Amino acid sequence: MRVIDRADAVPSQVGAVEVSRWEQYGLDGLPFGAMWYSVPPASHSRPDRHPEVELSLVLSGAATVHVDGEVREVAAGAAFLLSADTEHVVHNRSVTEPLVVFSAYWLPTPGATR
Amino acid sequence: MRVIDRADAVPSQVGAVEVSRWEQYGLDGLPFGAMWYSVPPASHSRPDRHPEVELSLVLSGAATVHVDGEVREVAAGAAFLLSADTEHVVHNRSVTEPLVVFSAYWLPTPGATR
Repeated sequence: MRVIDRADAVPSQVGAVEVSRWEQYGLDGLPFGAMWYSVPPASHSRPDRHPEVELSLVLSGAATVHVDGEVREVAAGAAFLLSADTEHVVHNRSVTEPLVVFSAYWLPTPGATR
Repeated sequence: MRVIDRADAVPSQVGAVEVSRWEQYGLDGLPFGAMWYSVPPASHSRPDRHPEVELSLVLSGAATVHVDGEVREVAAGAAFLLSADTEHVVHNRSVTEPLVVFSAYWLPTPGATR
């Protein structure tokens, strides 16, 4: 069994956000790409839009997601599913706590609705 | 964007463990099955073994995983990846805090090492 711990990851910086992509773990056979990311207090991600569907789990803190002209709150322990090609910005409105998220992403299957 | 919150799930009981399978959300196009599960304090899952690879993220509490003749600790925020056909038991050794896990599972691709 493999234990994958964010504490061991080598992150890269994307704007204010610290991103640890799972490619670095050399895991075979996952049917999705994966990453952890951390948004510092009172900060937010760059606007992002990509052809992959993205499922995110909030591991700690709370996410405020701006997408599709709406603003959605996602608490720790909950998940959010972004359709392909949807511009999204993830805010951390806490002034004290970092926001930590796990995301899995994959190209949609032709004919699927996501 | 779809927000998926464990608080809204309808769980089922598997031994001591409360399981909320994501089939109930009617999400299309995920390349894996998914569930949340919760192990009460001082309790554990039934021994489980299945043909799917399983990636688990510890959302709160800490998991003590018995697998392959070893015992591994997985802290909140970390993940563990179980190969197909591996018997595993997930313990919650805390006497006060529940253990909450998100799992994604899929049949391995022929030729993949997991």
